[in-house]
Parts: sequence; structure tokens; C-alpha cells
Amino acid sequence: MEEIANFILRAAKLIKNEEVNKALELLIEAYENNKKILVVGAGRSGLVGKAFAMRLMHLGFNVYVLGETITPSVRSGDILVAISGSGSTELILTAARIAKNVGARVIALTSYPDSPLGRLADHVVRIPGRTKIAEERDYFARQILGIHEPLAPLGTLFENTAMAFLDGMISELMKILGKSEDDLRRRHANVELP
Amino acid sequence: MEEIANFILRAAKLIKNEEVNKALELLIEAYENNKKILVVGAGRSGLVGKAFAMRLMHLGFNVYVLGETITPSVRSGDILVAISGSGSTELILTAARIAKNVGARVIALTSYPDSPLGRLADHVVRIPGRTKIAEERDYFARQILGIHEPLAPLGTLFENTAMAFLDGMISELMKILGKSEDDLRRRHANVELP
Amino acid sequence: MEEIANFILRAAKLIKNEEVNKALELLIEAYENNKKILVVGAGRSGLVGKAFAMRLMHLGFNVYVLGETITPSVRSGDILVAISGSGSTELILTAARIAKNVGARVIALTSYPDSPLGRLADHVVRIPGRTKIAEERDYFARQILGIHEPLAPLGTLFENTAMAFLDGMISELMKILGKSEDDLRRRHANVELP
Amino acid sequence: MEEIANFILRAAKLIKNEEVNKALELLIEAYENNKKILVVGAGRSGLVGKAFAMRLMHLGFNVYVLGETITPSVRSGDILVAISGSGSTELILTAARIAKNVGARVIALTSYPDSPLGRLADHVVRIPGRTKIAEERDYFARQILGIHEPLAPLGTLFENTAMAFLDGMISELMKILGKSEDDLRRRHANVELP
Repeated sequence: MEEIANFILRAAKLIKNEEVNKALELLIEAYENNKKILVVGAGRSGLVGKAFAMRLMHLGFNVYVLGETITPSVRSGDILVAISGSGSTELILTAARIAKNVGARVIALTSYPDSPLGRLADHVVRIPGRTKIAEERDYFARQILGIHEPLAPLGTLFENTAMAFLDGMISELMKILGKSEDDLRRRHANVELP
Repeated sequence: MEEIANFILRAAKLIKNEEVNKALELLIEAYENNKKILVVGAGRSGLVGKAFAMRLMHLGFNVYVLGETITPSVRSGDILVAISGSGSTELILTAARIAKNVGARVIALTSYPDSPLGRLADHVVRIPGRTKIAEERDYFARQILGIHEPLAPLGTLFENTAMAFLDGMISELMKILGKSEDDLRRRHANVELP
Repeated sequence: MEEIANFILRAAKLIKNEEVNKALELLIEAYENNKKILVVGAGRSGLVGKAFAMRLMHLGFNVYVLGETITPSVRSGDILVAISGSGSTELILTAARIAKNVGARVIALTSYPDSPLGRLADHVVRIPGRTKIAEERDYFARQILGIHEPLAPLGTLFENTAMAFLDGMISELMKILGKSEDDLRRRHANVELP
Repeated sequence: MEEIANFILRAAKLIKNEEVNKALELLIEAYENNKKILVVGAGRSGLVGKAFAMRLMHLGFNVYVLGETITPSVRSGDILVAISGSGSTELILTAARIAKNVGARVIALTSYPDSPLGRLADHVVRIPGRTKIAEERDYFARQILGIHEPLAPLGTLFENTAMAFLDGMISELMKILGKSEDDLRRRHANVELP
């Protein structure tokens, strides 16, 4: 657990401010124009996306999770937040392409800006994840070493980092929009179901 | 399959018009006052509820499914549509009680108007389901006979009937609100995820 | 509601016995060899698929829903049950292709055996749905007339028919496997969550 | 984001080894006796629970998420992992009580061992979360200060900490069971749906 926390801490310093600020700007723009935010991710990245969507709802955003019951059509001007460590999950790419086709903008959270998702996106925030050193294209690999494989298998580091990053975004959005914790609590589900 | 279809057909004649009309009235009232509709059901009844919620979204209702990611708090004036064949599923009751406490109204779809859910609800639509004849309180049992147990185990008949009933409600709502199929298609998800 | 019930009843007579029997055979074979059944569908078809998966679980099948938390990898010998009225939902096709690539077999439930999904599948059960008469390739259109559009918008008829059809399959599987309703009840979730 | 990472790091040092070891022991015992693990949590805690359940599945555990489609009945000897920062979410308590009644054991992850959930559980792992200093019963409050409210609203710190903690548990389970990352990859969904 300490390794994961240490990784997130180092990752926090590696994520580029200008990438974050641009993402915040796009989200605020959607908020002000009452456009929709749609969140998508596969597997554990999808769960992290849902945790983010829930907080955006608490903040008053017009937000949906792709694949849930009441998610309406994506439209021009909407924003798709696509979360994929590898940037090459086939079904996320399909979703992103459809979104692009109707004129929505795609923000990608990925460890690989050069991946298919990264190239397709309008804006990328590079989120460090564990990367094999052999995959030299990843510059994070050289800076974040010493994470032995079994300590955080598969996408674990990416997912934990993405969750903390997105919660950091929520904190920034609260400041920008002048929202208090009580504002969030008022929208928070009072019939909390598992 | 024919037994199920025959059951739905007979059930369609047993559901009381006045119960249906009152439910339509409550939904239209919520629509016009921009109040929320929240749908809840356990297991297969929950899936039927989601199918209904999806169509309400297509119609432009402000609708949510309890337990999904972006479902906000239930408030006074909102409507909870609670679906439970037995009317005694513990967690549905808990949800209904919370809704009542905040001033929301509860529409129950159940085979048992005398069940805890039925008694708690502001309005009940009685939906026939398979009922053991020994349970004499169910008047449907005497009218819909001949369904042998294995042909439709557990809540199957209730669930299929509830789905057809709710789709019938959608048809009525389309007429009342003057919505065409194209109106629905415009809101229908264009990134259809499994 | 009566229109929907009447449609299901007529559809029950149109679904071909040999297509049903072959599907039952494939499911029983997977059951006996302890292979996985994976169910997938988009939107309301996905909900119908989940209702089917729940009953297969009650029957003791090794069944999963694509996209849920604990769904493992698809393997050779597994069966993918893909549900799509149009047979051309992009993400269902992607899922079906991946399944084929690893050596799983695909059973398609669709109104269009000539659709991309229909052609890709190892076995198709043709399930009637509402079809525009102009789409002459659908032979059901000529037999099931008189359903006015607004009475059952979009995929409504397909979805209700597919649900009743799959519950009919469950009934058949119970007989073949010699399972009683009590057997199902024992596996039925006792912590029923919405 | 750095505040969150720093919180997780300090929390990692506060979580008691003996509480963790006992939890590992219970999970391993269930694994060896082929008993089920059932995971439950409301809202974002539920998402963290799903992320944990997914990894347990990758490790070969017989694991389910309460409320999903194919979740079977809870039985004597099974383990319910219940995640609730406050330990007083009504519907989690209902689920935990049902589990206790059938003879399952409950492991609670909560910031409040004295909460209703904490008292009901067979075993508690105390996970630090943000706590108001006025709530003096929480000893973490005195040790983890300086987290200003708006930086991590509502349950954010608990949820991020719980996620990193549970991923740390996965790492321990991999060691105990002698599983490699490749073992996990083999079970990882190959049809990754959002």
C-alpha cells in the first residue's frame, strides 16, 4: 500500500499543469454552456470514471456514464472523458470515434499520448502508470523505478493515480465554481444503494 | 413462451384502468413540474425498471435509476417508482421509506397491494404475477390458473407482465405528450454500450 | 399493452423450433462441459440479456454478463449469447468478433439473420421485432401487421419478445436438466439489491 | 492531488498490521474452502469494492458483487466484505444483517469501528478517512490534520485510501498464493466493456 501511495505522490509531480488546466477549462466551458460530460472507461478504469462522474454530478454538472441506463445521445459540443491506461482498449476507441463523428470533443486520460486513443483525442492528460522498461516509449518508466511487478499488477498504478488525479480535479472545480462541501452534500444521493 | 404471452394478455385485461390513469397522471405532473422520477427494483424487477427508465429518458423525463452512478438525492415532489412482485423485498422497502421521509411520492407496482410496499405507497398498480393458490389473498390466483410451476419459475410472469405494462405506459405517455418515435430516437444513446 | 402481448403471442408461433432446439443444445453442451456462457446486449436488449443470465445462474450455469465486474476472459469453447434486434450495433459486433477470435461460439438473437451479427454468428435464432415494411428483407413484416408505430416505439417489440422467448428457454432448460423451482430458489440471491 | 497522496501515505502507516493479517487470513480460508466472497459498498465505496472484486476474480477467488446480475445467494461460511466510511449506511447494514443471519462472516472496512457496521462485523479493518475533529471518537483525526475540507470533499479520502489499501491486500494475496501477474492476466476480461 505504501508503494502505491508513493507512486501516486511522484506521479502528482509528473502530471503537467498545462494539461490539467486545459482539461479544467474544457469542463468549465461545458458546465457554462450546459453541455453534457460523458465518461467512459473499461474495467477498473471505468470504475474510476464512475467515481469522477458521481462527484461531477454533486457539483451540478450535466454528466453521464456511457453504458448506464439513462445516458442520452452524445451531441456536438459535449465532452467525452475517456480513461484508458494503454490508450488502446478497442471498445473505448469505438466509443471515442462515435463521439468525434457527432462533433463531441474527447479528453483522454492515458499513460500513452501516442496510443490510438491519445492520437484521436482533442486533449490528452498523461497519467503515469506502471510501464515495462522495455517499452521505452514511456518516459515515465525511467523516472519511476523500483516498483516491482507483483506489488501492483496490471493497471493498478494507473487506476489509483487516475482516481487521485480526478479527485484533485474535483477540488479545483470546487474552487473555480465557488462550491462548498455542503453544496455537494445537497446533491449527494440520500438513497444510497450498493 | 406461448404460456407467458397468454398470461400477459390475460393480465392486460385485469389491470385496472383507474390505477393506470392515476399513475399516468402522477408521472405527467412530475414531467410538467420538472420533478424527478426515480426507479427502483431488485433483481429482474430492477432490470424491468431500468428498461422503463430508459424510455422515460427518451421521452424527455428527468429520470434516474436508484443505485446508478449519477443518481442525485430524492427530494420533495419527486416520484419513486418501486417495482416488487411480492411487495416485501427488504431493500426496496428501505428505499421507499427514505423517499417518503423526504416528501417524495411512491408508486408501487406489485401483485400484492396489501404488502408492506403496497401499504406504504401513495399509489399502487396491481400487476398480476404467478401466485400460489394457497395464498388466497391474491384474487388473480383464481382467475389465472393453469400455469404449471416449471413453465415460469419464481417472478417470471410478474416481470414479463410488468415490462409489457410499462411499455404500454410509454405508449400512453407518448400520446399525452404528443411525442413521435423520432423524438425518442433523438435522445436514444448513439454510443450504445453493453 | 394488449398489442405487445398479442405481438409476443404471434411471434411465439413464428420462431422456428429447429433454431430453438439448436440453441438449447449448445447451452446444454456448455453446461455439461462446464464452459462459460457470456451474455451481451446494448441498451434494453442488454437488460433482457441480464434477466436471462440471472435465470441461467439460478439453474447452475457458469454464466457471466459482459461488462460486469467479475466477468472473466472469454475462452475457446465458451458461448457468447449476443442480443441485438438490428444485428448491427457496433459494440456488440466488436464483442462478438473478439469472442470468435478466441474460439468461442456465438449465438445471435436478432430480427435480421442477414445482419453483420447474424452472418458472424455460429447460430442465429430469429426473433421478430417491429420492422418497417419498406425493409422488405424482413419476412416477419408481412406476417405481423397492424402494429402502429407509436404503440411500441423503437425496439420495444423485439425486447419484449426476446424476454418472453428467453424465459421460455429457461423453462425448457429446467425440463432438460430436471431442475425444480426450489433448485432455482436455492441459488436466488438472498441479499436482493436494487 | 498531492494532498490525497500524502493522506494515503500517512494512512498506510496507521492501518494496523494485525487487522490486515486477520483479514488476509479470512480471505485465504474462504479461497481454500471454495467459499464465496461477496463485496458490497454504496456509492463511491461500492466502486472501490468492485475494483477489489475484479482483482480477486483475477486471482481465482469465487467472488461476487452484491447487486450484480449473476450474484447467487449468500451462504454459511461465505464472507461479506462491507465497505462504508461512516459505517452507518442503512442499506449496507441491511445487507450485512442478512449475511449474518445465514451464517456468513462480515469483514468491515470503515473509519468507525464503533459504528453500527463496525459492531455488527466479525472483523473490522479501520481505514482512515477525513473526520471532523469535533467527532472526537475518531483517533485518526488527531494524527492526520491539515487537510482542509474543500480539498477532498465528503468520503474522498476514505475512498482513495480504501482503494490503495485493497490493492495492497491484492499484492499480499498474490504472494501468499504464489500467483504471478501472468496468472492474473489470463483471467482478465479479454472483451473489456465500459
